[in-house]
Amino acid sequence: MTTAERLPKQDRSRATRQRLLEAAVACLAEHGWAGSTVAVVAERAGVSRGAAQHHFPTREDLFTAAVEYVAEERSLALRALFPEGAQGAERRAVIGALVDLYTGPLFRAALHLWVAASHEEQLGPRVTELEAKVGRETHRIAVDLLGADESQPGVRETVQGLLDMARGLGLANLLTDDTARRERVVAQWADLLDDALG
Amino acid sequence: MTTAERLPKQDRSRATRQRLLEAAVACLAEHGWAGSTVAVVAERAGVSRGAAQHHFPTREDLFTAAVEYVAEERSLALRALFPEGAQGAERRAVIGALVDLYTGPLFRAALHLWVAASHEEQLGPRVTELEAKVGRETHRIAVDLLGADESQPGVRETVQGLLDMARGLGLANLLTDDTARRERVVAQWADLLDDALG
Repeated sequence: MTTAERLPKQDRSRATRQRLLEAAVACLAEHGWAGSTVAVVAERAGVSRGAAQHHFPTREDLFTAAVEYVAEERSLALRALFPEGAQGAERRAVIGALVDLYTGPLFRAALHLWVAASHEEQLGPRVTELEAKVGRETHRIAVDLLGADESQPGVRETVQGLLDMARGLGLANLLTDDTARRERVVAQWADLLDDALG
Repeated sequence: MTTAERLPKQDRSRATRQRLLEAAVACLAEHGWAGSTVAVVAERAGVSRGAAQHHFPTREDLFTAAVEYVAEERSLALRALFPEGAQGAERRAVIGALVDLYTGPLFRAALHLWVAASHEEQLGPRVTELEAKVGRETHRIAVDLLGADESQPGVRETVQGLLDMARGLGLANLLTDDTARRERVVAQWADLLDDALG
Protein backbone atom coordinates (compact mmCIF):
# COMPACT_ATOMS: atom_id res chain seq x y z
CA MET A 1 0.00 0.00 0.00
CA THR A 2 1.38 3.45 -0.90
CA THR A 3 1.36 6.40 1.45
CA ALA A 4 -1.45 7.99 -0.55
CA GLU A 5 -3.65 4.93 -0.14
CA ARG A 6 -3.02 4.76 3.60
CA LEU A 7 -3.88 8.38 4.33
CA PRO A 8 -7.67 8.22 4.20
CA LYS A 9 -7.60 5.33 6.68
CA GLN A 10 -5.39 7.33 9.02
CA ASP A 11 -7.75 10.28 8.68
CA ARG A 12 -10.71 8.09 9.52
CA SER A 13 -8.86 6.72 12.52
CA ARG A 14 -8.01 10.22 13.70
CA ALA A 15 -11.62 11.33 13.27
CA THR A 16 -12.84 8.32 15.29
CA ARG A 17 -10.34 9.11 18.05
CA GLN A 18 -11.46 12.73 18.14
CA ARG A 19 -15.15 11.79 18.31
CA LEU A 20 -14.39 9.46 21.22
CA LEU A 21 -12.44 12.15 23.09
CA GLU A 22 -15.17 14.74 22.68
CA ALA A 23 -17.88 12.27 23.67
CA ALA A 24 -15.82 11.27 26.73
CA VAL A 25 -15.62 14.85 28.02
CA ALA A 26 -19.34 15.41 27.44
CA CYS A 27 -20.17 12.12 29.18
CA LEU A 28 -17.95 12.88 32.18
CA ALA A 29 -19.39 16.38 32.50
CA GLU A 30 -22.97 15.07 32.44
CA HIS A 31 -22.80 11.79 34.31
CA GLY A 32 -19.69 11.98 36.47
CA TRP A 33 -16.98 9.34 36.82
CA ALA A 34 -19.31 6.61 38.12
CA GLY A 35 -21.55 6.93 35.06
CA SER A 36 -18.73 7.13 32.53
CA THR A 37 -17.44 3.94 30.90
CA VAL A 38 -15.77 3.18 27.57
CA ALA A 39 -19.00 1.46 26.42
CA VAL A 40 -21.19 4.48 27.19
CA VAL A 41 -18.77 6.79 25.39
CA ALA A 42 -18.46 4.47 22.36
CA GLU A 43 -22.24 4.45 21.97
CA ARG A 44 -22.45 8.23 22.34
CA ALA A 45 -19.72 8.66 19.70
CA GLY A 46 -21.35 6.15 17.33
CA VAL A 47 -18.24 3.95 17.41
CA SER A 48 -18.10 0.19 18.04
CA ARG A 49 -16.88 -0.88 21.45
CA GLY A 50 -14.04 -2.81 19.81
CA ALA A 51 -12.85 0.27 17.92
CA ALA A 52 -13.04 2.33 21.12
CA GLN A 53 -10.94 -0.21 22.98
CA HIS A 54 -8.44 -0.30 20.11
CA HIS A 55 -7.86 3.42 20.62
CA PHE A 56 -8.11 3.41 24.42
CA PRO A 57 -7.41 0.06 26.10
CA THR A 58 -8.60 1.24 29.54
CA ARG A 59 -11.20 3.60 30.98
CA GLU A 60 -8.37 5.63 32.56
CA ASP A 61 -6.64 5.97 29.15
CA LEU A 62 -9.81 7.29 27.53
CA PHE A 63 -10.80 9.87 30.13
CA THR A 64 -7.36 11.29 30.91
CA ALA A 65 -6.66 11.58 27.15
CA ALA A 66 -10.04 13.26 26.67
CA VAL A 67 -9.49 15.94 29.31
CA GLU A 68 -5.97 16.57 27.98
CA TYR A 69 -7.20 16.84 24.38
CA VAL A 70 -10.05 19.22 25.13
CA ALA A 71 -7.83 21.33 27.42
CA GLU A 72 -5.34 21.71 24.55
CA GLU A 73 -8.11 22.66 22.14
CA ARG A 74 -9.37 25.28 24.60
CA SER A 75 -5.84 26.66 25.06
CA LEU A 76 -5.34 27.01 21.31
CA ALA A 77 -8.73 28.70 20.98
CA LEU A 78 -7.89 31.12 23.78
CA ARG A 79 -4.59 32.11 22.19
CA ALA A 80 -6.33 32.53 18.84
CA LEU A 81 -8.90 34.84 20.47
CA PHE A 82 -6.16 37.27 21.53
CA PRO A 83 -3.42 36.88 18.91
CA GLU A 84 -1.63 40.00 20.13
CA GLY A 85 -2.15 39.39 23.87
CA ALA A 86 -2.62 42.38 26.15
CA GLN A 87 -1.24 44.75 23.54
CA GLY A 88 -4.25 44.25 21.31
CA ALA A 89 -6.97 43.50 23.83
CA GLU A 90 -8.35 44.91 27.03
CA ARG A 91 -7.08 43.05 30.08
CA ARG A 92 -10.63 42.70 31.33
CA ALA A 93 -11.60 40.73 28.22
CA VAL A 94 -8.60 38.46 28.71
CA ILE A 95 -9.52 37.90 32.37
CA GLY A 96 -13.11 37.12 31.35
CA ALA A 97 -11.91 34.58 28.80
CA LEU A 98 -9.56 32.96 31.33
CA VAL A 99 -12.43 32.63 33.82
CA ASP A 100 -14.61 31.14 31.05
CA LEU A 101 -12.14 28.23 30.85
CA TYR A 102 -13.52 27.09 34.20
CA THR A 103 -17.25 27.36 33.67
CA GLY A 104 -17.98 25.00 30.79
CA PRO A 105 -18.20 21.23 30.27
CA LEU A 106 -14.40 20.85 30.20
CA PHE A 107 -14.02 22.11 33.76
CA ARG A 108 -16.97 20.02 34.87
CA ALA A 109 -15.40 16.92 33.29
CA ALA A 110 -11.98 17.69 34.77
CA LEU A 111 -13.55 18.25 38.20
CA HIS A 112 -15.20 14.83 38.12
CA LEU A 113 -11.87 13.28 37.12
CA TRP A 114 -9.88 15.16 39.83
CA VAL A 115 -12.38 14.17 42.54
CA ALA A 116 -12.46 10.51 41.43
CA ALA A 117 -8.65 10.51 41.35
CA SER A 118 -8.54 11.58 45.00
CA HIS A 119 -9.77 8.12 46.06
CA GLU A 120 -9.15 5.84 43.06
CA GLU A 121 -5.66 4.40 42.93
CA GLN A 122 -5.44 3.69 39.19
CA LEU A 123 -6.41 7.26 38.46
CA GLY A 124 -4.41 9.19 41.09
CA PRO A 125 -0.89 9.52 39.58
CA ARG A 126 -2.12 10.01 36.01
CA VAL A 127 -4.55 12.77 36.90
CA THR A 128 -2.01 14.45 39.18
CA GLU A 129 0.41 14.60 36.23
CA LEU A 130 -2.32 15.82 33.88
CA GLU A 131 -3.44 18.52 36.33
CA ALA A 132 0.15 19.79 36.66
CA LYS A 133 0.57 19.88 32.87
CA VAL A 134 -2.71 21.66 32.17
CA GLY A 135 -2.06 24.04 35.09
CA ARG A 136 1.39 25.01 33.76
CA GLU A 137 0.03 25.62 30.27
CA THR A 138 -2.87 27.74 31.54
CA HIS A 139 -0.49 29.79 33.68
CA ARG A 140 1.76 30.39 30.66
CA ILE A 141 -1.18 31.54 28.55
CA ALA A 142 -2.39 33.84 31.34
CA VAL A 143 1.04 35.45 31.72
CA ASP A 144 1.36 35.94 27.95
CA LEU A 145 -2.14 37.29 27.33
CA LEU A 146 -2.09 39.58 30.38
CA GLY A 147 1.34 40.90 29.44
CA ALA A 148 2.45 40.15 33.02
CA ASP A 149 6.12 40.66 33.84
CA GLU A 150 7.01 37.76 36.10
CA SER A 151 10.44 39.20 36.85
CA GLN A 152 8.65 41.71 39.10
CA PRO A 153 8.13 40.49 42.69
CA GLY A 154 4.62 39.21 43.38
CA VAL A 155 3.47 39.16 39.75
CA ARG A 156 3.70 35.37 39.44
CA GLU A 157 1.57 34.93 42.58
CA THR A 158 -0.89 37.58 41.42
CA VAL A 159 -1.54 35.61 38.23
CA GLN A 160 -1.69 32.30 40.09
CA GLY A 161 -4.26 33.75 42.51
CA LEU A 162 -6.37 34.88 39.56
CA LEU A 163 -6.41 31.32 38.19
CA ASP A 164 -7.21 29.94 41.64
CA MET A 165 -10.12 32.37 41.82
CA ALA A 166 -11.26 31.27 38.37
CA ARG A 167 -11.21 27.64 39.54
CA GLY A 168 -13.27 28.60 42.60
CA LEU A 169 -15.75 30.44 40.38
CA GLY A 170 -16.04 27.26 38.30
CA LEU A 171 -16.90 25.29 41.41
CA ALA A 172 -19.50 27.89 42.43
CA ASN A 173 -21.14 27.39 39.03
CA LEU A 174 -21.49 23.61 39.40
CA LEU A 175 -24.97 23.37 40.94
CA THR A 176 -26.50 26.70 39.98
CA ASP A 177 -26.07 29.29 37.25
CA ASP A 178 -23.73 31.71 38.99
CA THR A 179 -23.21 33.97 35.93
CA ALA A 180 -24.61 37.24 37.35
CA ARG A 181 -22.59 37.10 40.58
CA ARG A 182 -19.50 35.87 38.72
CA GLU A 183 -19.57 38.81 36.31
CA ARG A 184 -19.60 41.31 39.19
CA VAL A 185 -16.73 39.54 40.97
CA VAL A 186 -14.67 39.32 37.78
CA ALA A 187 -15.23 43.02 37.00
CA GLN A 188 -14.02 43.98 40.48
CA TRP A 189 -11.01 41.64 40.46
CA ALA A 190 -10.09 42.80 36.96
CA ASP A 191 -9.70 46.31 38.39
CA LEU A 192 -7.58 45.00 41.29
CA LEU A 193 -5.40 43.03 38.85
CA ASP A 194 -4.98 45.93 36.51
CA ASP A 195 -3.61 48.03 39.40
CA ALA A 196 -1.40 45.16 40.60
CA LEU A 197 0.05 44.31 37.19
CA GLY A 198 0.71 47.95 36.34
CA MET B 1 -40.06 9.57 83.93
CA THR B 2 -39.00 13.00 85.22
CA THR B 3 -36.99 15.51 83.21
CA ALA B 4 -33.93 14.76 85.34
CA GLU B 5 -34.12 11.07 84.53
CA ARG B 6 -34.49 11.75 80.83
CA LEU B 7 -31.51 14.07 80.49
CA PRO B 8 -28.69 11.53 80.46
CA LYS B 9 -30.46 9.63 77.71
CA GLN B 10 -30.81 12.83 75.67
CA ASP B 11 -27.12 13.51 76.23
CA ARG B 12 -26.24 10.01 75.04
CA SER B 13 -28.42 10.48 71.99
CA ARG B 14 -26.78 13.81 71.20
CA ALA B 15 -23.31 12.30 71.60
CA THR B 16 -24.24 9.44 69.25
CA ARG B 17 -25.56 11.91 66.68
CA GLN B 18 -22.38 13.96 66.90
CA ARG B 19 -20.14 10.90 66.49
CA LEU B 20 -22.13 9.90 63.41
CA LEU B 21 -21.83 13.40 61.88
CA GLU B 22 -18.08 13.57 62.45
CA ALA B 23 -17.56 10.05 61.12
CA ALA B 24 -19.66 10.91 58.05
CA VAL B 25 -17.48 13.88 57.13
CA ALA B 26 -14.28 11.86 57.63
CA CYS B 27 -15.70 9.01 55.54
CA LEU B 28 -16.82 11.30 52.71
CA ALA B 29 -13.43 13.07 52.69
CA GLU B 30 -11.54 9.77 52.47
CA HIS B 31 -13.72 7.57 50.31
CA GLY B 32 -15.90 9.93 48.31
CA TRP B 33 -19.66 9.68 47.79
CA ALA B 34 -19.58 6.24 46.14
CA GLY B 35 -17.77 4.74 49.14
CA SER B 36 -19.91 6.47 51.77
CA THR B 37 -22.99 4.71 53.11
CA VAL B 38 -24.88 4.85 56.41
CA ALA B 39 -23.54 1.37 57.28
CA VAL B 40 -19.89 2.34 56.72
CA VAL B 41 -20.32 5.48 58.83
CA ALA B 42 -22.15 3.61 61.62
CA GLU B 43 -19.28 1.13 61.87
CA ARG B 44 -16.70 3.91 61.86
CA ALA B 45 -18.60 5.73 64.64
CA GLY B 46 -19.05 2.53 66.69
CA VAL B 47 -22.84 2.87 66.50
CA SER B 48 -25.33 0.16 65.51
CA ARG B 49 -26.82 0.46 62.06
CA GLY B 50 -30.29 0.66 63.61
CA ALA B 51 -29.30 3.57 65.83
CA ALA B 52 -27.72 5.33 62.85
CA GLN B 53 -30.90 4.93 60.83
CA HIS B 54 -32.97 6.19 63.75
CA HIS B 55 -30.99 9.45 63.64
CA PHE B 56 -30.69 9.64 59.86
CA PRO B 57 -33.31 7.72 57.87
CA THR B 58 -31.55 8.19 54.53
CA ARG B 59 -28.00 8.46 53.23
CA GLU B 60 -28.80 11.98 51.98
CA ASP B 61 -30.01 13.00 55.47
CA LEU B 62 -26.79 11.81 57.08
CA PHE B 63 -24.28 13.39 54.71
CA THR B 64 -25.97 16.76 54.21
CA ALA B 65 -26.47 17.05 58.01
CA ALA B 66 -22.81 16.12 58.50
CA VAL B 67 -21.42 18.77 56.17
CA GLU B 68 -23.77 21.37 57.70
CA TYR B 69 -22.78 20.43 61.27
CA VAL B 70 -19.03 20.49 60.63
CA ALA B 71 -19.31 23.74 58.67
CA GLU B 72 -21.08 25.33 61.65
CA GLU B 73 -18.42 24.05 64.04
CA ARG B 74 -15.69 25.48 61.79
CA SER B 75 -17.50 28.84 61.62
CA LEU B 76 -17.77 29.06 65.40
CA ALA B 77 -14.09 28.13 65.77
CA LEU B 78 -13.09 30.78 63.25
CA ARG B 79 -15.06 33.51 65.05
CA ALA B 80 -13.55 32.38 68.37
CA LEU B 81 -10.05 32.64 66.87
CA PHE B 82 -10.55 36.36 66.16
CA PRO B 83 -12.99 37.56 68.83
CA GLU B 84 -12.32 41.20 67.99
CA GLY B 85 -12.18 40.76 64.20
CA ALA B 86 -9.83 42.95 62.18
CA GLN B 87 -9.45 45.40 65.11
CA GLY B 88 -7.53 42.88 67.13
CA ALA B 89 -5.82 40.80 64.44
CA GLU B 90 -3.79 41.32 61.33
CA ARG B 91 -5.84 41.03 58.18
CA ARG B 92 -3.29 38.60 56.77
CA ALA B 93 -3.94 36.17 59.62
CA VAL B 94 -7.69 36.43 59.02
CA ILE B 95 -7.20 35.78 55.30
CA GLY B 96 -4.98 32.79 56.10
CA ALA B 97 -7.61 31.36 58.45
CA LEU B 98 -10.37 31.87 55.85
CA VAL B 99 -8.30 30.02 53.23
CA ASP B 100 -7.68 27.22 55.76
CA LEU B 101 -11.44 26.57 55.78
CA TYR B 102 -11.00 25.15 52.28
CA THR B 103 -7.98 22.90 52.69
CA GLY B 104 -9.05 20.36 55.30
CA PRO B 105 -11.32 17.29 55.43
CA LEU B 106 -14.48 19.45 55.60
CA PHE B 107 -13.83 21.01 52.20
CA ARG B 108 -12.87 17.63 50.78
CA ALA B 109 -16.12 16.12 52.10
CA ALA B 110 -18.18 19.06 50.83
CA LEU B 111 -16.50 18.80 47.43
CA HIS B 112 -17.45 15.13 47.11
CA LEU B 113 -21.02 16.00 48.07
CA TRP B 114 -21.23 18.98 45.63
CA VAL B 115 -19.86 16.88 42.75
CA ALA B 116 -22.19 13.94 43.49
CA ALA B 117 -25.12 16.39 43.71
CA SER B 118 -24.38 17.61 40.18
CA HIS B 119 -25.61 14.30 38.74
CA GLU B 120 -27.67 12.66 41.54
CA GLU B 121 -31.28 13.78 41.64
CA GLN B 122 -32.04 13.05 45.31
CA LEU B 123 -29.02 15.09 46.34
CA GLY B 124 -29.22 18.08 44.00
CA PRO B 125 -31.75 20.44 45.64
CA ARG B 126 -30.62 19.68 49.21
CA VAL B 127 -26.96 20.30 48.49
CA THR B 128 -27.75 23.45 46.50
CA GLU B 129 -29.62 24.81 49.53
CA LEU B 130 -26.83 23.75 51.89
CA GLU B 131 -24.15 25.33 49.69
CA ALA B 132 -26.07 28.62 49.63
CA LYS B 133 -26.49 28.60 53.42
CA VAL B 134 -22.84 27.77 54.17
CA GLY B 135 -21.71 30.29 51.53
CA ARG B 136 -23.79 33.11 53.07
CA GLU B 137 -22.48 32.34 56.56
CA THR B 138 -18.84 32.23 55.39
CA HIS B 139 -19.29 35.52 53.55
CA ARG B 140 -20.73 37.13 56.69
CA ILE B 141 -17.81 35.91 58.80
CA ALA B 142 -15.30 37.13 56.21
CA VAL B 143 -16.89 40.60 56.11
CA ASP B 144 -16.94 40.81 59.93
CA LEU B 145 -13.42 39.53 60.55
CA LEU B 146 -11.88 41.58 57.74
CA GLY B 147 -13.69 44.70 58.93
CA ALA B 148 -14.87 45.20 55.35
CA ASP B 149 -17.32 48.04 54.70
CA GLU B 150 -19.78 46.63 52.18
CA SER B 151 -21.44 50.01 51.71
CA GLN B 152 -18.36 50.98 49.65
CA PRO B 153 -18.59 50.07 45.95
CA GLY B 154 -16.70 46.91 45.02
CA VAL B 155 -16.02 45.77 48.59
CA ARG B 156 -18.64 43.04 48.53
CA GLU B 157 -17.20 41.62 45.28
CA THR B 158 -13.64 41.90 46.61
CA VAL B 159 -14.56 39.70 49.58
CA GLN B 160 -16.51 37.28 47.38
CA GLY B 161 -13.53 36.95 45.04
CA LEU B 162 -11.30 36.17 48.01
CA LEU B 163 -13.61 33.31 49.02
CA ASP B 164 -13.74 32.10 45.41
CA MET B 165 -9.93 32.13 45.38
CA ALA B 166 -9.91 30.20 48.67
CA ARG B 167 -12.22 27.58 47.13
CA GLY B 168 -9.93 27.29 44.10
CA LEU B 169 -6.91 26.90 46.38
CA GLY B 170 -8.77 24.10 48.14
CA LEU B 171 -9.29 22.34 44.83
CA ALA B 172 -5.60 22.73 43.97
CA ASN B 173 -4.79 20.96 47.24
CA LEU B 174 -6.93 17.92 46.48
CA LEU B 175 -4.38 15.64 44.80
CA THR B 176 -1.09 17.08 46.03
CA ASP B 177 0.13 19.06 49.03
CA ASP B 178 -0.04 22.58 47.61
CA THR B 179 0.90 24.34 50.90
CA ALA B 180 4.11 26.07 49.77
CA ARG B 181 2.61 27.57 46.62
CA ARG B 182 -0.62 28.46 48.43
CA GLU B 183 1.23 30.40 51.12
CA ARG B 184 2.96 32.54 48.50
CA VAL B 185 -0.31 33.24 46.67
CA VAL B 186 -2.12 34.08 49.91
CA ALA B 187 0.70 36.41 51.05
CA GLN B 188 0.59 38.30 47.76
CA TRP B 189 -3.20 38.58 47.61
CA ALA B 190 -3.37 39.58 51.29
CA ASP B 191 -1.31 42.64 50.32
CA LEU B 192 -3.51 43.42 47.32
CA LEU B 193 -6.69 42.93 49.36
CA ASP B 194 -5.41 45.07 52.21
CA ASP B 195 -4.98 47.94 49.76
CA ALA B 196 -8.38 47.28 48.21
CA LEU B 197 -10.23 47.15 51.53
CA GLY B 198 -8.53 50.32 52.80
